[in-house]
Amino acid sequence: MSTKRIAGPEIERLIQLLAKVPGLGPRSARRAALHLIKKKDQLMAPLAGALAEAVEKVTVCSVCGNVDTVDPCSICTDPRRDGATVIVVEDVSDLWALERAGAMNAKYHVLGGTLSPLDGVGPEDLNIRSLVDRVAAGGVSELIIAVNATVEGQTTAHFITDQLEGLDVKVTRLAHGVPVGGELDYLDEGTLSAALRSRTSF
Amino acid sequence: MSTKRIAGPEIERLIQLLAKVPGLGPRSARRAALHLIKKKDQLMAPLAGALAEAVEKVTVCSVCGNVDTVDPCSICTDPRRDGATVIVVEDVSDLWALERAGAMNAKYHVLGGTLSPLDGVGPEDLNIRSLVDRVAAGGVSELIIAVNATVEGQTTAHFITDQLEGLDVKVTRLAHGVPVGGELDYLDEGTLSAALRSRTSF
Repeated sequence: MSTKRIAGPEIERLIQLLAKVPGLGPRSARRAALHLIKKKDQLMAPLAGALAEAVEKVTVCSVCGNVDTVDPCSICTDPRRDGATVIVVEDVSDLWALERAGAMNAKYHVLGGTLSPLDGVGPEDLNIRSLVDRVAAGGVSELIIAVNATVEGQTTAHFITDQLEGLDVKVTRLAHGVPVGGELDYLDEGTLSAALRSRTSF
Repeated sequence: MSTKRIAGPEIERLIQLLAKVPGLGPRSARRAALHLIKKKDQLMAPLAGALAEAVEKVTVCSVCGNVDTVDPCSICTDPRRDGATVIVVEDVSDLWALERAGAMNAKYHVLGGTLSPLDGVGPEDLNIRSLVDRVAAGGVSELIIAVNATVEGQTTAHFITDQLEGLDVKVTRLAHGVPVGGELDYLDEGTLSAALRSRTSF
């Protein structure tokens, strides 16, 4: 792809910025820019406004690490939620996924990643201290560690469990098993073994 | 996908608008929104600014139909370009593609689509009248019809050629043939036949 300027500097800059949005590459950024230009009033202007508003208002919750336009976030201040149960997630996207599932009416704690010594991510880079402080302050009876079932996720889960040593809190984790709608034939041995070990009666 | 609100209304609205950008769906719009929020200063604020600037400045060239921040566009007013050759394209994206190829130093005329009676697109919906007027005004010696090699594109090309009847202009079209780097085995019969008919000597 040449770096030849094919449009005015304003349009070029828009394409360059759009190309940095995950899900869009250089080619689709051009297509997106053209679509936005064609739908100037219906899409480009509202999107510019929504982004500017988000830049101004969106903040990170000082209690749980969620993103919202208020601090503490609307989940932390929601009186209908059971604050005694806190679900620990790696990222806000995991919080959103669990909220869409809508299975728990709990509160959250967003770690902001997983421990990864190779990438230089240590405990001080994650919201682990604030989690321990939150539990130590009392009122939390169960901590559901809902990190990804990856090596880094599990390492982080073990580290957190160690840090909570001596605090009066029940620490649980998500069940392993067959995904709903999943076919056994396509599942790995680890998942199948876990599903068998954790079998339940009809 | 449930319609449950997972974040504040400002973030929800941002996700909804991002989902309308071509290349992003509901799921990737959430991922994009979260990435933008995390890169607030590096990406979200500049993108909001670039969009607002584009909303304010981008306009359609009254001569050729290109999009730019000036009218007539910078291609139409470029003194280094040969105004005697005009390349007729369906869309601005085709103009950009030809500019990236950089093979011609010509000017353009953007039709804004192709004739499509089934979709209710007639000649008055495209920039055909302005093309004929432009040629009739004189100074254009060659019109390269660079529409897509689709049925609609070819129909539109024939219609334009008819409209130019009696005007002193040479009308040409893009060559059909084997794409550079293409393998014969994967090409359709129509392209292969055209490539054979238009064979050139070494």
